[in-house]
Amino acid sequence: MSTTGISTTTASNITAPTQFLETNGETYAYRRFGAGPRPPLLFLQHFTGTLDNWDPAVTDALAAGREVILFDNAGVGRSSGTVPQTIAEMARHALAFLDGLGLSSCDVLGYSLGGMVALEMVQKRPSIFRKMVLVGTAPRGGEDIMHLEKPTLASYLGDPTLKGYEVLQKIFFAPTAESQTSGAAFIERLAQRKEDLDRPSGPDVAANQIAAFREWETFTGERFADLRGIQQPTLVVNGVHDEMIPVFNSYSLVENLPNAMLIVYPDAGHGSLFQYNELFVGQVKSFLGSDSPSAVF
Amino acid sequence: MSTTGISTTTASNITAPTQFLETNGETYAYRRFGAGPRPPLLFLQHFTGTLDNWDPAVTDALAAGREVILFDNAGVGRSSGTVPQTIAEMARHALAFLDGLGLSSCDVLGYSLGGMVALEMVQKRPSIFRKMVLVGTAPRGGEDIMHLEKPTLASYLGDPTLKGYEVLQKIFFAPTAESQTSGAAFIERLAQRKEDLDRPSGPDVAANQIAAFREWETFTGERFADLRGIQQPTLVVNGVHDEMIPVFNSYSLVENLPNAMLIVYPDAGHGSLFQYNELFVGQVKSFLGSDSPSAVF
Repeated sequence: MSTTGISTTTASNITAPTQFLETNGETYAYRRFGAGPRPPLLFLQHFTGTLDNWDPAVTDALAAGREVILFDNAGVGRSSGTVPQTIAEMARHALAFLDGLGLSSCDVLGYSLGGMVALEMVQKRPSIFRKMVLVGTAPRGGEDIMHLEKPTLASYLGDPTLKGYEVLQKIFFAPTAESQTSGAAFIERLAQRKEDLDRPSGPDVAANQIAAFREWETFTGERFADLRGIQQPTLVVNGVHDEMIPVFNSYSLVENLPNAMLIVYPDAGHGSLFQYNELFVGQVKSFLGSDSPSAVF
Repeated sequence: MSTTGISTTTASNITAPTQFLETNGETYAYRRFGAGPRPPLLFLQHFTGTLDNWDPAVTDALAAGREVILFDNAGVGRSSGTVPQTIAEMARHALAFLDGLGLSSCDVLGYSLGGMVALEMVQKRPSIFRKMVLVGTAPRGGEDIMHLEKPTLASYLGDPTLKGYEVLQKIFFAPTAESQTSGAAFIERLAQRKEDLDRPSGPDVAANQIAAFREWETFTGERFADLRGIQQPTLVVNGVHDEMIPVFNSYSLVENLPNAMLIVYPDAGHGSLFQYNELFVGQVKSFLGSDSPSAVF
């Protein structure tokens, strides 16, 4: 995609049209916008998230310097098929999607569930990613991944007074005034998109993705040894008070990936990238924009 | 100190003259150079380190935007007195030194042992520091702090073929070609200073500082609760393969300090700030230069 023909008004997740790719016997929904000299940046989404859950403060600011591609995995949003019960199968869909687009190389921003899919993809097809950004995620063999029955999460998920995105504000942000204020701004930004919306995820999507988390928590052989062969420069980011996928999973990533830098934000939960969107975007731009073979930037 | 009268040639730890302050019944050796609009940055040194162990690549680049003050604690280098066997007593000397200079507010870069002294100082005198940078250090109650008898350290410390700073290259840097190359460049930079040198630390200095580490590993009451009252924005930095003060101590810092951001560098040991000196200086400048009340920058 060239830089011509991209108007600034469509280089936004508020207005970018949803597109559909038929390949692999499925129809995958996606949005693709922005332009720049670097490889496209593939966004892989969190638990139950659709294309509409990507914060325009993050996507649009990154799209100012590169193409971004937001992707609904099988059975999510308006993609066809069934949500797989394993990360491996989700990775197979995402690789088929990239093949269908004709993309042989890109960068990836894998958030939460999406980070696990990215880790699986890079091991199956090492040439596919130039650089990786992994936010609020966990390696295979990680612990305490999305245990929604925990009191700290269940109290919000079971609260009938919380409407729509309000539950996201509670569970993605730390229980402080500052973090909750950021959360309120985040859900306002999500609500800016009014048309061409994805179908919100139902309990069937959640159940299969939870099954995938449970399978991802298991491991055979030496724990985390699978990470040591991943050569891609990787930026690992986490909020220090992440109740959904606790920060110690990011410690395991940075301690075992050969070329990863870790940044932990204060006073932030699972949605740290949205809370500190300006800072996060600046760091991701510096990281992706560096030609160094090292993850440091 | 105004910006006038500071020549670029003296704003360097290669050439800055050592000064002496008589106060508190002691004579403290220090170097003070650089200029800028921000508060001075106090450097607190590592185990057995003197003024000559500060990498000019770090001190000089930071001195380009602010005054920096390098300090020999009691009994170290050319400071009078005996090396204390507790961090608390080292903090008392450092506070007396700042009082003697007439400084009521500054920033601090506490490295290794120096980070512990900074943590003690900020609790004794909360108004003293505006912002803190803590590198390769540990909170009270931290673990595996400078256990030099560990095989990974003892093999180098007991190697008679390693001369002078060569042992620093081995124990401050990771056992990879890239990190060791950085280490060789580091010790070459240290060797640039030829005159007005500090007395290197002997076994008496090491023994008393080790006693202080052992005392710092102990705690009473709730572990790390002392960190929760520290309000200063804090940048915590560590190399992922730090054998001297392992990175999990930095995790404890960022998880318990209310307002701290953590950065972990890949392929680096205890001397991560020297290995990635350009990156580190840039991050410290951004952090200290930000007027945000948050640690993020």
